[in-house]
Amino acid sequence: GHPVYRDMPATIFEKMSARARETGAINLGQGFPDAQGPDDILRAAAEALLHRSNQYPPSGGLPELRQAVAAHYERHQGLDLRAEEVIVTSGATEAIAASLFALIQPGDEVLLLAPLYDAYLPLVERAGGVARIARLTPPDWRITREALDTMIGPRTRLLILNNPLNPSGSVMAREDLAMLASFCLDHDLIAICDEVWEHVTFDGVRHQPLMAFPGMRDRTVKIGSAGKIFSLTGWKLGWMCAAPPIATLLGRAHQFLTFTSPPNLQWAVAEGLGKPDDWFTAMRAGYQASRDRLVRGLGDAGYAVQQSAGTWFVTVDLAASGMALNDVDFCERIIGEAGVAAIPISAFYPDAAVTHLVRLCFSKSDAVIDEAVARLGAFR
Amino acid sequence: GHPVYRDMPATIFEKMSARARETGAINLGQGFPDAQGPDDILRAAAEALLHRSNQYPPSGGLPELRQAVAAHYERHQGLDLRAEEVIVTSGATEAIAASLFALIQPGDEVLLLAPLYDAYLPLVERAGGVARIARLTPPDWRITREALDTMIGPRTRLLILNNPLNPSGSVMAREDLAMLASFCLDHDLIAICDEVWEHVTFDGVRHQPLMAFPGMRDRTVKIGSAGKIFSLTGWKLGWMCAAPPIATLLGRAHQFLTFTSPPNLQWAVAEGLGKPDDWFTAMRAGYQASRDRLVRGLGDAGYAVQQSAGTWFVTVDLAASGMALNDVDFCERIIGEAGVAAIPISAFYPDAAVTHLVRLCFSKSDAVIDEAVARLGAFR
Ligand SMILES: CSCCC(=O)C(=O)O
Ligand SMILES: CSCCC(=O)C(=O)O
Repeated sequence: GHPVYRDMPATIFEKMSARARETGAINLGQGFPDAQGPDDILRAAAEALLHRSNQYPPSGGLPELRQAVAAHYERHQGLDLRAEEVIVTSGATEAIAASLFALIQPGDEVLLLAPLYDAYLPLVERAGGVARIARLTPPDWRITREALDTMIGPRTRLLILNNPLNPSGSVMAREDLAMLASFCLDHDLIAICDEVWEHVTFDGVRHQPLMAFPGMRDRTVKIGSAGKIFSLTGWKLGWMCAAPPIATLLGRAHQFLTFTSPPNLQWAVAEGLGKPDDWFTAMRAGYQASRDRLVRGLGDAGYAVQQSAGTWFVTVDLAASGMALNDVDFCERIIGEAGVAAIPISAFYPDAAVTHLVRLCFSKSDAVIDEAVARLGAFR
Repeated sequence: GHPVYRDMPATIFEKMSARARETGAINLGQGFPDAQGPDDILRAAAEALLHRSNQYPPSGGLPELRQAVAAHYERHQGLDLRAEEVIVTSGATEAIAASLFALIQPGDEVLLLAPLYDAYLPLVERAGGVARIARLTPPDWRITREALDTMIGPRTRLLILNNPLNPSGSVMAREDLAMLASFCLDHDLIAICDEVWEHVTFDGVRHQPLMAFPGMRDRTVKIGSAGKIFSLTGWKLGWMCAAPPIATLLGRAHQFLTFTSPPNLQWAVAEGLGKPDDWFTAMRAGYQASRDRLVRGLGDAGYAVQQSAGTWFVTVDLAASGMALNDVDFCERIIGEAGVAAIPISAFYPDAAVTHLVRLCFSKSDAVIDEAVARLGAFR
């Protein structure tokens, strides 16, 4: 026997960012903006740091933030959450960990959809769960009831859904969400919904929370991230929302993972969540322009790019670009030869990986996008 | 079957603080100072928030902080850590969780010493471990080799040590640490050392890290907390230090619990760890004066108090105070009738609890201590 984590590598995001730092490559790998974040939120956090308490907030989060998250989801997504149904976490990763440690008992099966975010599988296994993986297929990344049916069993308890989906940038259609909801009801599943990209959608596409579908209100954990909403990925402030019986369990797991999160960041995010609609519209428009700039530039340089409907990512299709490299080799070559870091999509698969797609992050300044495009163009 | 956390209550600290907030009681329960924390560290954090990156730092922590922790322990405790052996976490609770999830494989036995911090046992069990609990006995809270020998078995892999010890405020003597070290060597154990109170010691008593004892350098996880060192409990910034093979495993667990922690707090703590010796001396002297004030006041009011050599806590001995109440009943009565919140020591025992001791936190202003003493005096 050996410790569960013995054969696990550092995350692909960490590895690529480390290499970008070492080599000075432009980092379009790990998803983070290169801008500083909203000035008023930063100032609110600094004010609170200097003038309010820096001691333990309640484990579930400051009442102001729990209330702000509930109000935010009512205004933006029509959900009827109460503050007690919101538990603040040290980032969405902690929310995912807490949800899985709270809800999995050893031997439970958990349904995952590949491509999948790298934390899901090790956490499911560390919690004693057994992963059952259904596949989404490019280029539309849809899921069918048939694909789910082949993976379900009497011990399946949970479904993990990431929507909008990292790495594809796809946003699940209403009819597919309705199908997922009825699937969860039919099989008495709890859905853990990693919706950290909920506000980052383009071309008028709007995110629909699975929790809003019939029957899902009491069987969904909805996970959100202030870092993604406000372009402050280092803040590591997130939350998980669920009906009281589930929320109580989540709070128990959370109290022994981090217990609580810095109060000054909580106050600032509580303020930020109340920003007017046009702030969110402008945020989306800004990222959409960056997406378009990268897609246009790469297209002009001869790359075939899959459009994205959300997230900070687009994917280059190496096969359709007429390149004879797989994703891992391409990423190796471009970090070394072009000075651009990217993420191979195969990193999102535990097995039978899709290997012709490479993820690029576009939440960067125009100058950085243009320079990356120039480098990748020269590389071709 | 049911989820592991189903029958678990909210932590005693959370419950007592919530009741103190609701009732307006003076909160000598959960351990936190009522002062604002060091002004220069707060200003450094605010500066970094406004003028440096708020995006993901490396998962293991900013190099500046990892280096500062290593240098700090060399200067203060004579340890020879390298920066790569330090992994920054979102508080010591996360460090404990990451250590246990990294190092326990299902079925492993873990040796704990009671009284024990409330996170240890649920985390050991959630990681699939089996707890074996040896007892320290008041008033001296020492551990004997015999007590350990009765709890060791062929599957024992880990020992968790909290030193200085919460709730007793005792600091382990050098000879007992030497015994523990040779016990770990004899049984090939890894020691997880929760040393968050390492700087908060009184009367010239100095903390000795178990890692410094012969043979322990490569079999110890040393856990520290910026919140405790700098009286900023809400910051939730800590670290775990271990030799490379162990540190690598810890990093794997950490990357899927919180991934990283806010960079501005990391920069500020890196700066703070370099404070001159007299800052630490003054910090200790300040808390020692508060301890003495509370002990004297309670003594004058007729309570028998156990002196503490470290931490922010002293314990009232109800039996020696001639009170016919157990600790839980006493805490119930004083929060309701005297308006003072405290922590019953029995909360630190999973079974066969010591029930004649109540923990009081003295990291408060003189006025708050005096008012609490007056209320508890009137209650007698
Ligand atoms: C926590 S590092 C990964 C960040 C992210 O969401 C991504 O790059 O996919
Ligand atoms: C994380 S709440 C508990 C804080 C503490 O160390 C204590 O009060 O013992």
